[in-house]
Amino acid sequence: MKTRAAVAWKAGQPLTIETVDLAGPKAGEVLVEIKATGICHTDYYTLSGADPEGIFPSILGHEGAGIVVDVGPGVKSLRKGDHVIPLYTPECRECKFCLSQKTNLCQAIRSTQGRGLMPDATSRFSLNGQDLFHYMGTSTFSNYIVVPEIALAKIREDAPFDKVCYIGCGVTTGIGAVLFTAKVEAGANVVVFGLGGIGLNVIQGAKMVGAGKIIGVDLNPEREKMAREFGMTHFINPKEIENVVDTIVQMTDGGADYSFECIGNTKVMRDALECTHKGWGRSIIIGVAEAGAEISTRPFQLVTGRKWEGSAFGGARGRTDVPKIVDWYMEGKINIDSLITHKLKLEDINEGFELMKRGESIRSVVIF
Amino acid sequence: MKTRAAVAWKAGQPLTIETVDLAGPKAGEVLVEIKATGICHTDYYTLSGADPEGIFPSILGHEGAGIVVDVGPGVKSLRKGDHVIPLYTPECRECKFCLSQKTNLCQAIRSTQGRGLMPDATSRFSLNGQDLFHYMGTSTFSNYIVVPEIALAKIREDAPFDKVCYIGCGVTTGIGAVLFTAKVEAGANVVVFGLGGIGLNVIQGAKMVGAGKIIGVDLNPEREKMAREFGMTHFINPKEIENVVDTIVQMTDGGADYSFECIGNTKVMRDALECTHKGWGRSIIIGVAEAGAEISTRPFQLVTGRKWEGSAFGGARGRTDVPKIVDWYMEGKINIDSLITHKLKLEDINEGFELMKRGESIRSVVIF
Repeated sequence: MKTRAAVAWKAGQPLTIETVDLAGPKAGEVLVEIKATGICHTDYYTLSGADPEGIFPSILGHEGAGIVVDVGPGVKSLRKGDHVIPLYTPECRECKFCLSQKTNLCQAIRSTQGRGLMPDATSRFSLNGQDLFHYMGTSTFSNYIVVPEIALAKIREDAPFDKVCYIGCGVTTGIGAVLFTAKVEAGANVVVFGLGGIGLNVIQGAKMVGAGKIIGVDLNPEREKMAREFGMTHFINPKEIENVVDTIVQMTDGGADYSFECIGNTKVMRDALECTHKGWGRSIIIGVAEAGAEISTRPFQLVTGRKWEGSAFGGARGRTDVPKIVDWYMEGKINIDSLITHKLKLEDINEGFELMKRGESIRSVVIF
Repeated sequence: MKTRAAVAWKAGQPLTIETVDLAGPKAGEVLVEIKATGICHTDYYTLSGADPEGIFPSILGHEGAGIVVDVGPGVKSLRKGDHVIPLYTPECRECKFCLSQKTNLCQAIRSTQGRGLMPDATSRFSLNGQDLFHYMGTSTFSNYIVVPEIALAKIREDAPFDKVCYIGCGVTTGIGAVLFTAKVEAGANVVVFGLGGIGLNVIQGAKMVGAGKIIGVDLNPEREKMAREFGMTHFINPKEIENVVDTIVQMTDGGADYSFECIGNTKVMRDALECTHKGWGRSIIIGVAEAGAEISTRPFQLVTGRKWEGSAFGGARGRTDVPKIVDWYMEGKINIDSLITHKLKLEDINEGFELMKRGESIRSVVIF
């Protein structure tokens, strides 16, 4: 079949809208009509050429929502008409990682996904006979995609695609880091470094579980207003104070119980660790640092009880947890609407990247 | 009263045996006759002058066992004749740290202890009118000491002092890191870097809880034999292989579930983290690094699920957990006897430091 898609031909160049060929689903695969997709920093990171694992030509996008159109042989958990969110972190429920019950990092299709291919090591996309690569196993910048069954979360049918698509990455990454990775408890003091889309979702996760102080840190004073609306109780602009770590330690009577780095800056990651409380502070790295960058600290920070950890896709097991987060949105427990600042047509997708670069959007969503 | 003690007058100089003056216990304090004390690397670290917080003249030693001789006003939990192990990490059961139930790092007397003083900010030791400083709140190189009640673990009376003194530091630090900090579960694969006194106790802790593979890493091939006796299942000499991390990842089908750094080398600490399993590996730093040294890694190691942590005094709450470890020794669950390779008189204490420097002893114990 044919589908419209935004194609990334080369690093650093704008996407072009093409009508590409899409092969049907093979065994264990599902054909999905994407109804809406967010544009995430990770798409931009790959498109910019900074991602050493970026592959071109490819169809980017990993934050979508849509409807099952067809299923391949052997697919049991989904059928035509089901509403779904594609998962760049799948959940096979059979691999060593899924069965460990200690991680969400299912490795069932890791190697082919990393090479831009479906599990049988081929691509479903092509144009004029040339294969186009898949991206993060999802490629939601295409109106129709083929995805393995284990990489689709089935969600309720009354959830609006143009909102819950954001649960495919940003919402889950932020809220999940609080609920699934850190398991923040009521009353705990939380610090969030970086008040972009991820940071705001960390804040509303912390508010959801009844955290005590929720301290936001950002260089941009314009971020304060919305962060307060999402539950931030205290704001720190590092430009206005002498020492971020000391300030946080004083504000929290010894240090934060939990901190979250949502920027990808290795110096900030160190501050995020060192501002946590002696004896039990836990610092969770969410942001993706530039290739080759390293974090450092004195080991004394760890020997005196702080823990340095990370979170990917919010520690969420996609098929199990994403439907719950959709429920929370539909029940009004979390706010997604305010975070979606721009809606675009596919033809205008490059404008979405520009809005992100200029810091004008929290999230732009493309509606097919 | 008078007591014999080994006094550290200056960094880098041998201890001298003196008869010093000891003031009696004040409110909340206890007079203890030390019957035996181990000589630990930390004593040597301070005596060498490398410890930036070292204070002289002082009476070193922090790994003792003895009998209560007298108690000061208000002491309720101990009385004359009780057998005790002094605790350099006290347990007041009243401070924010003790009540958190998340750490053993009681801070009740931290500031005075760090300054070589009792909680009222004075010393009980003097010689010819000159005050001598306490060390780690214990000073077990003195035959008699005064210690706060909260810094004494009451132990059973049939436990031999010349063995269980080692529980005052090394045994608890190693076994506790496995049982109390990491909470290693049966079947888990464990890697131990450094097979000295701490490493051997980590190994027997891992064996005690039913760990799977217990892999020891040491440059000294002579360490292999005893480590195997304590439960090590596989030995790696980094001199004999190309890459320690890769070797461990292969031996453990993806990485160790837990690793323990028992050396104090920041490069080894990085290997210890990076040899653990994607998704859930936890690396525990026990060794004390040289002042100013820093650990580094790529944040990707943490974002993909490894956790970097530390352990002090094995995560043990001294008054609660040390008596349990004494029980385990008396019940034959753990081996201390083989680790105590040398017994010395107080007059020969400097020989104990020499044995340690030459790598000839696991643990030397001074018998009063």
